[in-house]
Amino acid sequence: MKQNIEIFDSTLRDGAQGSGISFSLDDKIKITLELDELGVDYIEAGNPGSNQKDRDYFERINTMKLKHAKLVAFGSTRRKHSKAAEDGNVASLLSAGTQAISIFGKSWDYHVTNVLHTTLEENLAMIADTISYLTKEGKEVIFDAEHFFDGYKNNEGYAMESLKAAYDAGAKALVLCDTNGGAFPDEVAAITAKVKSLFDVTIGIHCHNDGGMAVANSILSVEAGATQVQGTFLGIGERCGNANLSTIIPNLQLKRGYSCIPEETMEQLTTSARYIAEVSNLTLDRSMPYVGHNAFAHKGGMHIDGVIKAKGSFEHIDPEAVGNDRSFIMSEVSGKNTIISSIQRVEPSLTKDSPETREILEKLKKLEHEGFQFEGAEASFELIIRKHLGLYKPFFQLDYFKIIEEEKQGENECSASALIKVMVNGQEEMTAAEGNGPVNAIDKAIRKVLGMFYANLKDFHLTDFKVRVLDGANTAAKVRVLIESTDGEDYWSTIGVSTNIIEASVLALVDSIEYKLIKDMEVEEASKS
Amino acid sequence: MKQNIEIFDSTLRDGAQGSGISFSLDDKIKITLELDELGVDYIEAGNPGSNQKDRDYFERINTMKLKHAKLVAFGSTRRKHSKAAEDGNVASLLSAGTQAISIFGKSWDYHVTNVLHTTLEENLAMIADTISYLTKEGKEVIFDAEHFFDGYKNNEGYAMESLKAAYDAGAKALVLCDTNGGAFPDEVAAITAKVKSLFDVTIGIHCHNDGGMAVANSILSVEAGATQVQGTFLGIGERCGNANLSTIIPNLQLKRGYSCIPEETMEQLTTSARYIAEVSNLTLDRSMPYVGHNAFAHKGGMHIDGVIKAKGSFEHIDPEAVGNDRSFIMSEVSGKNTIISSIQRVEPSLTKDSPETREILEKLKKLEHEGFQFEGAEASFELIIRKHLGLYKPFFQLDYFKIIEEEKQGENECSASALIKVMVNGQEEMTAAEGNGPVNAIDKAIRKVLGMFYANLKDFHLTDFKVRVLDGANTAAKVRVLIESTDGEDYWSTIGVSTNIIEASVLALVDSIEYKLIKDMEVEEASKS
Repeated sequence: MKQNIEIFDSTLRDGAQGSGISFSLDDKIKITLELDELGVDYIEAGNPGSNQKDRDYFERINTMKLKHAKLVAFGSTRRKHSKAAEDGNVASLLSAGTQAISIFGKSWDYHVTNVLHTTLEENLAMIADTISYLTKEGKEVIFDAEHFFDGYKNNEGYAMESLKAAYDAGAKALVLCDTNGGAFPDEVAAITAKVKSLFDVTIGIHCHNDGGMAVANSILSVEAGATQVQGTFLGIGERCGNANLSTIIPNLQLKRGYSCIPEETMEQLTTSARYIAEVSNLTLDRSMPYVGHNAFAHKGGMHIDGVIKAKGSFEHIDPEAVGNDRSFIMSEVSGKNTIISSIQRVEPSLTKDSPETREILEKLKKLEHEGFQFEGAEASFELIIRKHLGLYKPFFQLDYFKIIEEEKQGENECSASALIKVMVNGQEEMTAAEGNGPVNAIDKAIRKVLGMFYANLKDFHLTDFKVRVLDGANTAAKVRVLIESTDGEDYWSTIGVSTNIIEASVLALVDSIEYKLIKDMEVEEASKS
Repeated sequence: MKQNIEIFDSTLRDGAQGSGISFSLDDKIKITLELDELGVDYIEAGNPGSNQKDRDYFERINTMKLKHAKLVAFGSTRRKHSKAAEDGNVASLLSAGTQAISIFGKSWDYHVTNVLHTTLEENLAMIADTISYLTKEGKEVIFDAEHFFDGYKNNEGYAMESLKAAYDAGAKALVLCDTNGGAFPDEVAAITAKVKSLFDVTIGIHCHNDGGMAVANSILSVEAGATQVQGTFLGIGERCGNANLSTIIPNLQLKRGYSCIPEETMEQLTTSARYIAEVSNLTLDRSMPYVGHNAFAHKGGMHIDGVIKAKGSFEHIDPEAVGNDRSFIMSEVSGKNTIISSIQRVEPSLTKDSPETREILEKLKKLEHEGFQFEGAEASFELIIRKHLGLYKPFFQLDYFKIIEEEKQGENECSASALIKVMVNGQEEMTAAEGNGPVNAIDKAIRKVLGMFYANLKDFHLTDFKVRVLDGANTAAKVRVLIESTDGEDYWSTIGVSTNIIEASVLALVDSIEYKLIKDMEVEEASKS
């Protein structure tokens, strides 16, 4: 029987404190449903006492049925020298209508006297009164002992008294928080074990990443007896972030045999991580353990060689276990193997000694020197291979474009128009379109022409657009544009490099459309044969 | 007496395996000098056997004098069934002319038989022969036991034999590598202690981050007896990266009393990290512990309030200890405190109850709703405050612009011209300029006019230019442009939001120039008074 670990996700509450994070009500609903689908146990979704958006969220989510997760409203202990039953914030926690409530309170004496400005006794009363009131109201109460580790190191006795106040008042879980994120793994392990030996109730761990050790601290706490892990799904959070649940879950479940989420959803982990990043309007860190695009991407020639010979040789787990993919990164140091496997996907008869392979390799080096980078632009690289091998049907050619933009001070919109000439099926078509910007104007103009020939373009759209200045220094520098596109089924990435941002964007856009047309043609041909 | 820990930096070697990393020769020299300045002990800079760029690097660096660090060339044991003295790669290691050499060899039996395809005995001979040859040539040899932890778990006896072969051959350090990055802290600690008890030589630790625990694993290894820590300065490296030295160094030195780098350079840590990121053409992760822009940035209202009351209350160390800064992030959840402190920097007489403060708060909310985000665009926010308070001298006004771009298929360059009307000192100036792209053309045209009035603009230039698509879906989406600028002394960031990328860029560019002019005027006025 596997030991069960409760996963307590605070992406929507503590994660919302992360720099650059601003969830809309709709984002919060989407993320809640995704986390529930994945099978986490608790979703801490907001503080109904602090803002209207959170109150609206609870009202809306209560009309939906979750499969697995319990919703949690978050708030603080009652105000000093008052009664929980008469506290407005405590009342708003109840009004959220959740099954569970987490209450944070002080366990570090320094904070009680210097931040809260009250007595040590009154702080204990605030904890006890709030938790016992909410328990009597039928709620499952989780007590977050803020700054527990710093508090313990400063005044062990008082830190323990704060837990005892919560325990005696009926808290179902005592959560040890490393609020400042600076605790060390050995301390976390020893202190968790001590607390575990004293309280016969669920012990939780809540780490921040200021020492870069939030994941390890959480895991050592579990090994010392904690059975609830709090964190955020992608590690987002204030300062250096919270403990990253997308790393902790597979670490515990795949390597140490704990049960965190249902076995059958583990393969959904990568998809969930990318979905949550997209809803959060975040670029997922490519090097994030388990779920990042590069988590199983091999670049060193020797590593690529090793993985080809024996796949466990440079991978700590099978990427499929978390729904991720193995990949080989193209670069000057990766040796030929990666490039050859890309070439062979297009033309299986070629080998590493074929002259075409050598030519493509040289072309690649030349383009990399000019600032292209095919990591993350595999579709553009495939087009280069196809063009070089003559395995390329030119669906269309953008022969000419002109863009005119104009803005007068005080007018709200800047108008952009594009005039293009496109050659399709031997026929030259000229057209023009207006857009919200130059790239949009060209995109619209191209679609206007191509839409007459290729109906399948209607589901195609861009999902990401990134610009990177290469030489750093000024507006005349070379820029690299990376575009990610989708047709609802696949995702692909293309690149354009130029000193002109418009030209770089157009290059990447044209590649993306060409890739889509080639891909559809191949699917169609495969279904015929 | 503090225990000394050798810091072994492999940014230029293992870090170069990171996705998106491609160091020029010049980059490598710059990073070497910066690391030496900081005071690391070893700089592993490349594999002279694998490429010409690394050979050129060693030739050039050998003409320079380093203050503190020893340079290290990296390579593998000799080929199977040959002699080290006749091995070309081993010879090229010697030709690098470094004081130290690191040699990696297999310590996992599975790799010996399934990747190297040789016998267990021959592998030990390869280790012994190579190390003893290089030692006799007068080199300090460091042995990297590849896959040591996996090897130990699979065949403890053989893993230890590989270390013994290196030790007996004269290796000065035995480095335990978690090459696949999946080891757990308890394993790393226990296995390090075991090795330490058997070999009377420096024990090193080299971790990868596939389980998100490379920092903690390195630290627990040190606490178990390792005295050399290998890693990369920003954690860059293949897949999920290497152990991050910029986190490990302050963790060990500021919190556990070890000595890693000279005390006086610790305050340079953040500057070094940002410099190395810039040379590596990387965007430094804002949430990176100790050195990230957000490492001491407070967003939650309660946290900001706490830090203002007692600064240790939500910070694990004083940010100045590593040369970083505390900051408060503006956002809807941060409460008024942050905004008020920004407002008071412009106009000290205003308080949180002033009507102007309320108006600015509302303006901020409205702009955030439109897609502006003032985290990372503090200069634009200051301009908004100044404009609202009437504390703003309009140095210039861009009244009109028109951009024309044209490209014909087959022509290499896309031409962009900008026509502008600018009002300066009550005088309307019209001019035009050609540029490499539309933003560059406008930038040049504006400078052409303003240069006649403001000579101080000549040192001003952009250092970064970021574009983020806000609504995600297509080329008509709203885009947010963030520009970072410098005049050699200060750095500042500005923002523009529009559905039109050109318009968004122009907004950010104009803000940046205005900010520079205001800043210089204030400095000048202060020096007069």
